[in-house]
Amino acid sequence: MGKSNFKFDNDILALRARIDEIDGQILSLLDQRQTQVEKVVKLKKIHNIPVYHPAREEDLISKLRVQANKTNLDPDFMEDLYRLILRQSRVKQIDQMGGKGVRPDTRVLIIGGEGQMGQFFASLFRKSGYDVRILGKKDWKKAKQLCENIDLALICVPIEKTCDIIEQIAPFLGPKTILADLTSIKAKPLKKMLEAHPGAVTGLHPLFGPSSGSLDKQIVVVTAGRDSDQCQWLVEQMTLWGAVIVPCSAEEHDEIMEIVQTLRHFATFSFGQFLYEKHVRLERTLEFSSPIYRLEFGMVGRLFAQDASLYSEIIFATKQRRQLLKDYIASLNNHLEMLEANDKDLFIEKFDTIAQWFGPFSEQAMRESTFLINKLIERF
Amino acid sequence: MGKSNFKFDNDILALRARIDEIDGQILSLLDQRQTQVEKVVKLKKIHNIPVYHPAREEDLISKLRVQANKTNLDPDFMEDLYRLILRQSRVKQIDQMGGKGVRPDTRVLIIGGEGQMGQFFASLFRKSGYDVRILGKKDWKKAKQLCENIDLALICVPIEKTCDIIEQIAPFLGPKTILADLTSIKAKPLKKMLEAHPGAVTGLHPLFGPSSGSLDKQIVVVTAGRDSDQCQWLVEQMTLWGAVIVPCSAEEHDEIMEIVQTLRHFATFSFGQFLYEKHVRLERTLEFSSPIYRLEFGMVGRLFAQDASLYSEIIFATKQRRQLLKDYIASLNNHLEMLEANDKDLFIEKFDTIAQWFGPFSEQAMRESTFLINKLIERF
Repeated sequence: MGKSNFKFDNDILALRARIDEIDGQILSLLDQRQTQVEKVVKLKKIHNIPVYHPAREEDLISKLRVQANKTNLDPDFMEDLYRLILRQSRVKQIDQMGGKGVRPDTRVLIIGGEGQMGQFFASLFRKSGYDVRILGKKDWKKAKQLCENIDLALICVPIEKTCDIIEQIAPFLGPKTILADLTSIKAKPLKKMLEAHPGAVTGLHPLFGPSSGSLDKQIVVVTAGRDSDQCQWLVEQMTLWGAVIVPCSAEEHDEIMEIVQTLRHFATFSFGQFLYEKHVRLERTLEFSSPIYRLEFGMVGRLFAQDASLYSEIIFATKQRRQLLKDYIASLNNHLEMLEANDKDLFIEKFDTIAQWFGPFSEQAMRESTFLINKLIERF
Repeated sequence: MGKSNFKFDNDILALRARIDEIDGQILSLLDQRQTQVEKVVKLKKIHNIPVYHPAREEDLISKLRVQANKTNLDPDFMEDLYRLILRQSRVKQIDQMGGKGVRPDTRVLIIGGEGQMGQFFASLFRKSGYDVRILGKKDWKKAKQLCENIDLALICVPIEKTCDIIEQIAPFLGPKTILADLTSIKAKPLKKMLEAHPGAVTGLHPLFGPSSGSLDKQIVVVTAGRDSDQCQWLVEQMTLWGAVIVPCSAEEHDEIMEIVQTLRHFATFSFGQFLYEKHVRLERTLEFSSPIYRLEFGMVGRLFAQDASLYSEIIFATKQRRQLLKDYIASLNNHLEMLEANDKDLFIEKFDTIAQWFGPFSEQAMRESTFLINKLIERF
């Protein structure tokens, strides 16, 4: 037994040494790859070409899949691996492109520039060569001075303060200044901006938190206000930073956000509340959690790692939003009778109706979440 | 303009050709790596060593992080990349180890072997050299014959049928046969198995669906019944297939599953019901969805891509479970007043209490879900 283990240990150590050697070569090639990518960036920077080039990426992936098929490698695995390499490459490129401004030297004033989102955008604008000024809570005495000759006034304050701040800042703005906001509701602030400022106006809603660290493939909703042509450079700048622009009306935006933000967050909040009421032992529960449950609990935990006031703003922003949540609770109450009566057949009937209504989306959701579950298994 | 574009095109094509060349070399090295890994598998197979070797993996990752730091590569990126490579390597190894049985030639009867989960385990057992028989719905006439000389009777039928099937099969089993089940509730079936069969008994709950395709790092709960020593080979076989074993009492299992399965699925179901009632335009909504919302909606869609009766079984399995859901609805009703009164302060107070109770779990959830969100950005 001892002898055979000794032989086994030696054999396996030799194989591992060979694997380590191969890994070292892979690492060196990845480093060389990055050097080449940096050269591409330099060229793109000179010619003002965006980083994300979907056609080139898909072409590269297709080629690799064909090559993988000629070896023992699984093409799906090669695709996953290169999606990761390409994303890293994009992030690096965006980082380096940061210096590239669509309109460098333009003067940008960020109102609420001391908040997390304000800081995030201030840093992006600065990296791209813009002249950035900050107007924080304590700077209102010198507001007039800060507004002198600015080309863009960008409002990054909590939802509830947005309309008041618009009224306060508008009188200091010149007629050629663009007034824009980043609030997560759009109809009211847009209306207020159009009333308060006679110049160019645009509403933006970046659909991500400042914690994401990059604009790569993040969605920014643009709701046009006045003189959209004059605001075009701002949209182009966001694209150059890696964002995906979704244009729509302020009303449609708000309607969709009621579902995407208000309802979703409230449902997650009330789930957390119930776990707390029942004193569920989270840690022990996680030991029993397959990736899918882990992911679902993670979404709940994630909410409570963030700022309560941000969520209170999103949930309580309008009377409509509160009504939607009351409707949601009413809808849950409709299930009580089914539970009382232990009516499985009714459950299946309801389930199948909803499944049919979801249609092809369920299949897509299944595919996407299975992909993520595999990622979770890979990582933890 | 034309000339400079021509120069740019040529330069970028040359760089891309060099990148393609590097990618070809990386692919070839990955292929070589896999060949070495296959040699490791052969050795492990001879010596009956499990595939998953956490210490070796962590050591390898640490080394690569150190090496990455000496280049321009981001160590986090290298770690992500190698987690993917190591998982692929594990899956391949498990595939190849499949031929390795802890007790090949042992006779296994799978009752309900025509269902998805039954088929999944039948295929695993067969690959590992077991003698596998199936008892489907139509085979009860020859049940006695199928049970002759079997070493393991594994029950894979819907929850509601489990106890009846145990009663029906037990009289055909010899005293040395192990009786086991895969049901997602454990107390009742375990009690029934102990009553009906005088030999070895064990309860298993694999925490995943048959769609996952592999046992790699999947959790299997083991609730001991009688003569655990005699059942040990079965647990070892699951480990060799890649599973992580969590032992616990049937009662604790059921209590935890009330939260992990029943509550979670019901919450998701009622969210889907409300989206349907409000005729939410899913596709348009997705265009506005940042990765986190996309992920959350994906979890809802995923539920409805699956089998209604499976979920009805999980939700309606016991009176306690139905009571828990009624408590959940009651807890939601408690928020109505807060919404009516537009009481943000109360919301923040509740939120902070829950956040404190969640404690370090929120931070962990934030980290894990941020990782997944980045994966989602990478992929779609």
